[in-house]
Amino acid sequence: MDDTYIKLNGELPKLKTPVLIVGLPGIGSVGKIVVEHLKKEFKAKKVATLYSNHFPHQVAMLKNGGIRLVNNRFYVLKSKSKKTSDIVLLTGDVQAMTSEGQYEVNRMIVDFFRNQLQGSFIYTLGGYNISGSVAQNPRVFGNATSLSTVNKFRSKGIVFGESKGTILGSAGLIIAFAKMNGMEGICLMGETTFIDVDHRAAKAVLELLAKELGLKIDTKNLDKMIEKTAQTLKELEQQIATSIPMPQPGLGNTGGDNRTTSYIR
Amino acid sequence: MDDTYIKLNGELPKLKTPVLIVGLPGIGSVGKIVVEHLKKEFKAKKVATLYSNHFPHQVAMLKNGGIRLVNNRFYVLKSKSKKTSDIVLLTGDVQAMTSEGQYEVNRMIVDFFRNQLQGSFIYTLGGYNISGSVAQNPRVFGNATSLSTVNKFRSKGIVFGESKGTILGSAGLIIAFAKMNGMEGICLMGETTFIDVDHRAAKAVLELLAKELGLKIDTKNLDKMIEKTAQTLKELEQQIATSIPMPQPGLGNTGGDNRTTSYIR
Amino acid sequence: MDDTYIKLNGELPKLKTPVLIVGLPGIGSVGKIVVEHLKKEFKAKKVATLYSNHFPHQVAMLKNGGIRLVNNRFYVLKSKSKKTSDIVLLTGDVQAMTSEGQYEVNRMIVDFFRNQLQGSFIYTLGGYNISGSVAQNPRVFGNATSLSTVNKFRSKGIVFGESKGTILGSAGLIIAFAKMNGMEGICLMGETTFIDVDHRAAKAVLELLAKELGLKIDTKNLDKMIEKTAQTLKELEQQIATSIPMPQPGLGNTGGDNRTTSYIR
Amino acid sequence: MDDTYIKLNGELPKLKTPVLIVGLPGIGSVGKIVVEHLKKEFKAKKVATLYSNHFPHQVAMLKNGGIRLVNNRFYVLKSKSKKTSDIVLLTGDVQAMTSEGQYEVNRMIVDFFRNQLQGSFIYTLGGYNISGSVAQNPRVFGNATSLSTVNKFRSKGIVFGESKGTILGSAGLIIAFAKMNGMEGICLMGETTFIDVDHRAAKAVLELLAKELGLKIDTKNLDKMIEKTAQTLKELEQQIATSIPMPQPGLGNTGGDNRTTSYIR
Repeated sequence: MDDTYIKLNGELPKLKTPVLIVGLPGIGSVGKIVVEHLKKEFKAKKVATLYSNHFPHQVAMLKNGGIRLVNNRFYVLKSKSKKTSDIVLLTGDVQAMTSEGQYEVNRMIVDFFRNQLQGSFIYTLGGYNISGSVAQNPRVFGNATSLSTVNKFRSKGIVFGESKGTILGSAGLIIAFAKMNGMEGICLMGETTFIDVDHRAAKAVLELLAKELGLKIDTKNLDKMIEKTAQTLKELEQQIATSIPMPQPGLGNTGGDNRTTSYIR
Repeated sequence: MDDTYIKLNGELPKLKTPVLIVGLPGIGSVGKIVVEHLKKEFKAKKVATLYSNHFPHQVAMLKNGGIRLVNNRFYVLKSKSKKTSDIVLLTGDVQAMTSEGQYEVNRMIVDFFRNQLQGSFIYTLGGYNISGSVAQNPRVFGNATSLSTVNKFRSKGIVFGESKGTILGSAGLIIAFAKMNGMEGICLMGETTFIDVDHRAAKAVLELLAKELGLKIDTKNLDKMIEKTAQTLKELEQQIATSIPMPQPGLGNTGGDNRTTSYIR
Repeated sequence: MDDTYIKLNGELPKLKTPVLIVGLPGIGSVGKIVVEHLKKEFKAKKVATLYSNHFPHQVAMLKNGGIRLVNNRFYVLKSKSKKTSDIVLLTGDVQAMTSEGQYEVNRMIVDFFRNQLQGSFIYTLGGYNISGSVAQNPRVFGNATSLSTVNKFRSKGIVFGESKGTILGSAGLIIAFAKMNGMEGICLMGETTFIDVDHRAAKAVLELLAKELGLKIDTKNLDKMIEKTAQTLKELEQQIATSIPMPQPGLGNTGGDNRTTSYIR
Repeated sequence: MDDTYIKLNGELPKLKTPVLIVGLPGIGSVGKIVVEHLKKEFKAKKVATLYSNHFPHQVAMLKNGGIRLVNNRFYVLKSKSKKTSDIVLLTGDVQAMTSEGQYEVNRMIVDFFRNQLQGSFIYTLGGYNISGSVAQNPRVFGNATSLSTVNKFRSKGIVFGESKGTILGSAGLIIAFAKMNGMEGICLMGETTFIDVDHRAAKAVLELLAKELGLKIDTKNLDKMIEKTAQTLKELEQQIATSIPMPQPGLGNTGGDNRTTSYIR
């Protein structure tokens, strides 16, 4: 049995110029919130499940008393218009735990989308940490596979060239492998700070994406969560005044070497 | 030589609709205590040993001056009644140290039980951490491979749907692989807190299991250990009053993302 | 697809007795600064890129909004004189993350240089940590593949026999594999202390190397950075007076066992 | 190229019922001191070198300005008497860094000794941590492959049955693999405490081993080091009086679960 494999949920549907939207666990849970929202709102249909021994050795306990081996799942959302693409969603419980595993799993995701689903464009979604206070209108940062894709999205409110450092995990590797295989793609990152589950950043990414894909979305449930988080933050502020530890600028994204700003250990 | 392999202790016995009971090192040592108890009380016979280079590079020093490379061991306990199943016990010194190793070792355990021993039902045993004071009558939580198995056990005093997060290691992966291979199984978790070796939680699981399997057990030695631990705890309480650090709710089981309850890092 | 592979940038050029100069991320960033300097000053041409799943799972965000999967890159610098060798430069974003990865990646680098580029001599560059105040005229320490290479370089201002402990990563493994494959090589280490990005140590190595290779170099940009770092240090000193924590002697280089000087844990 | 391999130093000598003595880096450096002593005093001849990508990615810097990729080395010491066995020594710079690496390297060591050198008995040497003050006459603890070997050595001043927990690394795995391959062996552990390089414990093991092997040894250099360490300790004691932190009983050896003595986390 292979280390990493994709189990099909019956025969794969035939898709029209599909685009892939990837939202896995990561910074601010931004990507996962967006894809889970699309999945639920449009009742996307599960078509395949990816398992890997590079995922954590964990089994999720379900509310009904059942279990699920942690995995990544592909869903399909058929377009109702002739003009727009079918959409493939990828979300899941986890990401691979080692660098070797990340390369293997993400390469398989790109190969599957390209060879089995004949896809050609990929959106990966994530958060981008900015130090400081919570943004009321979070920006969406972008990094893309080519300058022509950068230029295509620049006019749509996405900020290019301000995000620095490196993108960790699936959000980065999937568009890197897409590029190496002659596909195009973009990583969209919602501006976030120290919030673990940032619905506000997710909403910013979702709205931008919906507009691009011609989807009409209802963000009522996100608004409720945003309100709830804001309330929690307010209470916390009152309780602990100024003692919340702030992460360093860009720390969450930077796995590399910000040498220009660091001279002393 | 393979990385993980099972060495038989002579020819395997022919078994009657065997069930597997897995009790390896883990939370509160609950699983291991239960299986070691069954092994000793019913003088189960060792039939096979599993070795793996994913286990720690450790050799146990024995009381008689000998040695044992750390491993997992299968024992057989023949039923004395025609109505009840033969029992296979699995216990050992260790679990695999990496995620990749966990997948490999536990897949091999399930394959061995299914293909070599023609088994079809698996119990995995463990502990489930609940914050707070020591329960006088620990509950037993369950998660099972299917809703029909959930329903079958619901009436037997097992609590379903309250255990949250993820099950780590063999207790989770073995029933997950069982499910993927068309077998049924259940993970039984004794309620425990901050106690490393929790005989009280183990007794709760053992009694439930014994009833289910039609075994008459003698828990005198467990009662002695429970009394001893209670005594130690009482002395500790007197010494350090309220300074015992308590683990967070569900921390021991949760390898995943309890996002709904965590907004701030 | 192999775990580690080198992608050629078109056909490889034919080179005259090429020498390889390796400057990857490491102590004080010394090696990387030197090789990046040579690359820019002499407009070296990229000929190949090495990718590996043993590198971190990171994608660099570029200023133009693009992306780059982290990698190591080979550049060629053709000699303008008939008397001197062509130069191959190797630099990159990262080094392999595991010991197994280090062996694999560095073995491939040596094989590529030897078999594809017909090279026979390798310089690896790095820093060597000395505790204490910043050296105004940092020394360059050397360790080489053979005593004849040691003797050849001894007269050129390189200090042999004073560097102790072990060399970690590419700077060490590449000359070790060179030696095992009948090639010669030397690791040149600029004296550094607690500075993350030490342009002064880099300049010392660069000047020595340039002289050896018959290159005329312009170190104005390095001088500017040295001045800037000196200024930063001065300000820090004034601010925190004597509270800068100093690393232990040789700690940065020593992965091994300096047993002769350590009796007590 | 294999991950782990042994490079012969010319043709292997023909040996008379060879015994292997293993002394690699470990607790108190006991094993390494003993084997290095035997190697030097009897001018043992190097016959093979083991390299592995599971060793650290380190290259040792030599005093003469040269380098050495870290490794394990086999030496041969021919017996001068017809009655006694030839001796094979194994020492080196490092041990494998992962559990998988430990299994692979130590299995290869046992296979090499058995199949290439026709050996049949193995001594592995190490230290055994006992909390408390430095023993003036350190005991030597033993664990062996069989009860007959235990009994054979019991009368020779080796303490059996008092060492508890697990033996980590080569000292344990090599005799475990020996046992699995029908060979005999013993792990001899010198009593040590918190001293990194414990020549006193090493001397105790060396004297016991020399007697057993019929070797006349000169321990003057060890005595000097013991005196030096004692002097250092005395000075330390005077300086810091009672503030030396003591390791817990058996902590150094115990990778496993001393459950019977630990109830509370």
